[in-house]
Amino acid sequence: MDTVTSALLTDLYELTMLEAAREAGTASRRCVFEVFTRSLPEGRRYGALAGTGRVLDAIAGFRFDDADLRYLRGAGVLTEETLEHLAEFRFAGDVHGYAEGELYFPNSPVLRIEGTFENAVLLETVVLSILNHDSGVASAGSRMITAARGRPCIEMGGRRVHEDAAIAAARAAYLVGFASTSNLAAGAHYRVPVAGTAAHAFTLLFDGEEEAFRSQLASQGAGTTVLVDTYDVEQAVRTAVELAGPELGAVRLDSGDLGEQAVQVRALLDSLGATGTRITATGDLDEHRVEELKDVPLDGYGIGTKLVTGGGHPAPGFVYKLVEREGADGTMQPVGKRSASKATLGAGKAAYRMRVGGRAHAELVLPGEEEVAEFERELTAELTSGTSHPDWARTSLRPLQQPLILGGELVETLRAPERVEAARIRHAESVAELGIAADDGPDGPVAIPTITDGTEAARLLG
Amino acid sequence: MDTVTSALLTDLYELTMLEAAREAGTASRRCVFEVFTRSLPEGRRYGALAGTGRVLDAIAGFRFDDADLRYLRGAGVLTEETLEHLAEFRFAGDVHGYAEGELYFPNSPVLRIEGTFENAVLLETVVLSILNHDSGVASAGSRMITAARGRPCIEMGGRRVHEDAAIAAARAAYLVGFASTSNLAAGAHYRVPVAGTAAHAFTLLFDGEEEAFRSQLASQGAGTTVLVDTYDVEQAVRTAVELAGPELGAVRLDSGDLGEQAVQVRALLDSLGATGTRITATGDLDEHRVEELKDVPLDGYGIGTKLVTGGGHPAPGFVYKLVEREGADGTMQPVGKRSASKATLGAGKAAYRMRVGGRAHAELVLPGEEEVAEFERELTAELTSGTSHPDWARTSLRPLQQPLILGGELVETLRAPERVEAARIRHAESVAELGIAADDGPDGPVAIPTITDGTEAARLLG
Repeated sequence: MDTVTSALLTDLYELTMLEAAREAGTASRRCVFEVFTRSLPEGRRYGALAGTGRVLDAIAGFRFDDADLRYLRGAGVLTEETLEHLAEFRFAGDVHGYAEGELYFPNSPVLRIEGTFENAVLLETVVLSILNHDSGVASAGSRMITAARGRPCIEMGGRRVHEDAAIAAARAAYLVGFASTSNLAAGAHYRVPVAGTAAHAFTLLFDGEEEAFRSQLASQGAGTTVLVDTYDVEQAVRTAVELAGPELGAVRLDSGDLGEQAVQVRALLDSLGATGTRITATGDLDEHRVEELKDVPLDGYGIGTKLVTGGGHPAPGFVYKLVEREGADGTMQPVGKRSASKATLGAGKAAYRMRVGGRAHAELVLPGEEEVAEFERELTAELTSGTSHPDWARTSLRPLQQPLILGGELVETLRAPERVEAARIRHAESVAELGIAADDGPDGPVAIPTITDGTEAARLLG
Repeated sequence: MDTVTSALLTDLYELTMLEAAREAGTASRRCVFEVFTRSLPEGRRYGALAGTGRVLDAIAGFRFDDADLRYLRGAGVLTEETLEHLAEFRFAGDVHGYAEGELYFPNSPVLRIEGTFENAVLLETVVLSILNHDSGVASAGSRMITAARGRPCIEMGGRRVHEDAAIAAARAAYLVGFASTSNLAAGAHYRVPVAGTAAHAFTLLFDGEEEAFRSQLASQGAGTTVLVDTYDVEQAVRTAVELAGPELGAVRLDSGDLGEQAVQVRALLDSLGATGTRITATGDLDEHRVEELKDVPLDGYGIGTKLVTGGGHPAPGFVYKLVEREGADGTMQPVGKRSASKATLGAGKAAYRMRVGGRAHAELVLPGEEEVAEFERELTAELTSGTSHPDWARTSLRPLQQPLILGGELVETLRAPERVEAARIRHAESVAELGIAADDGPDGPVAIPTITDGTEAARLLG
């Protein structure tokens, strides 16, 4: 396996734009880039932000090493002057962003990168790769966790995605509430708890199922999970309980009608006295299938393909847009492409989750602190008018953006595993704040509106 | 960026199964595992195999280093004896497989891994991760290339997928005929040609579009591609031609009605004398969109999200199944799970593409060389009977499997870039042999049947 510096995880045009801007004298203009997604996939109530921690690692490691420069020199598209400059490249700007694990909505500015053009433009590709991938998995996984209604879910999709993406997917899944992963590298790097059962190949290796189960139990103990659908499910369950006794940890069903089989297997286990033996289901599960199985006596789910490929929406569509830059006169100016909607045009934004009575009510994405201050004044006036709905008295604004990198230096210095644990807690709190119940079903309209100007925000109070 | 050994890109249960089998004395049983997919996604005529070269690299590097073993020891799920054994682990078996770039169909045995159980079972996760990911991208990309009818396609989806998956995706895309990639790491590692244009941020960085274009042209030369849809397309095209002259390389359209705009821009470029300036389109393209644009004066496509996420089918569903193993009596025995169809049950298979008149006619996947020899005898009898259709005289069987690793040693020792070039040629030949024309459209039934027993095969000749 080759090691790749994060600097080469980049589109060529970032470097040619840097070169052209340097030659034109505009590369040092101060710029503000924002990362956001214009909409959520159909049926999604919210998105789950994941990858921020990995973005911070990638930015910290973003430098062109000798091998990178040798390749770029050979490619012949950059001048020697540019290559020498790249050799010294370090990100020296500021990054603010939503906490990892936080929910996001259309136009939520989940990351803001400020620096010179040449400094900030180079990060585009790797920042988007990470946030799009990890948030795609997290957004799908969060729905599965809600549908599972507290029953533990194991991430086991590594074999369905790129081998390195598998590690990040396991991390993202844990972050939104998965109990564990089958992926050892995710265990090693992020301390995600690892779990596993056995494959059909194990049963088939032996001359009979009984011998396979006996060997597994002898090696792994009675608490192990045996796979019971290689030949005949009923016989397999009887054999396993006979061998392990009522201490048998769990049985796994991986094919057929999971609902029907789970009912039969539960009854059989109970009749054999194995009332504490759990039943785990696997096999093309997603949030919809888990929802369908909600009244079935299953104790946990192993979820693979649909989770790690983002549940049909592998890339949330995060973009990295220049929203503000220094002009020739030295002042900062909002910029935007002609076709961009008003919501995406303009200066760096301040974002707050407006809560009423502890419940998320709106995503306020206001163009700058002045509009926020104005809204807060209106909110105060509303509250003191005496005519407002009693709920408003419990209104608060939770700031969503926090400094992550200042002057090129990491503000938050958690180690990777701690960062994931913090994000896991943040995610659970943020979902709870939304007040969506499992019985509402996985699909629905976007849960809260994104309010992008002060007038609209004031109307909320009307 | 952490370096990960390929050995930890593995599901925990592979190791616990290994431990249990070792303790039971079955770990040294000789086993045959096959990799295949049971079906193709709806509407797909064929699959494109990619990743084989990366699999060979992963197997060659598959060993547990000290950090891996430290983690596993800390996880507390394996005995010290198993850990010591893993420290010495090297794959010592045989691998045969389809050439990378080759097409596959339902039940095509694209890879066969033979060795002891403990040797072969450990490779499951990383082999599937690589083949599922890379073939997912390649299978989608191959359709795009057909739809593009010879117009060059640039892979530019890196920002929509995991940062390392992006490299493999660029490699897979090139392998099926993409002309180039925006991804620098794919250029560095696999010598995929790199290409790029400019982003809206570049235009927005300057105080005016003219200044932006002038700077890009001064730095990159007249042959560059300018992005013309930041403000007003017509004005941008006029400005670019005014500045660059008719030598302007290309203009890029990234939004709006690409078909309508391309017609207008072509007319405008021609009227300005820039008859050689090309028009490149980008923006949520896939094979269907490219097909719709076939009569539009576009000269190339930049394709991103839909390509790198497998065109709606990110994972082809490759599985790694034990099909044959040594029994207690020392003989090899076919094995299979109860629910497995006949096609997937049984011993390691021999695979041939049957061709009639140079055209692919069927995928023969016969259980062993004897059935193949029998079929060849019947074929010869048919040909000499004098009553057969004249086409049969031009019937041939192309063997699809080749040795890749024998006794743990790599048979084919091409370097990574050469391997990709060879696969690119193989893929183009294999698609041509299928005889599907662009005008047939991207979607259709599976192109050729997979024949899994000799009787069925003989019926082909009837």
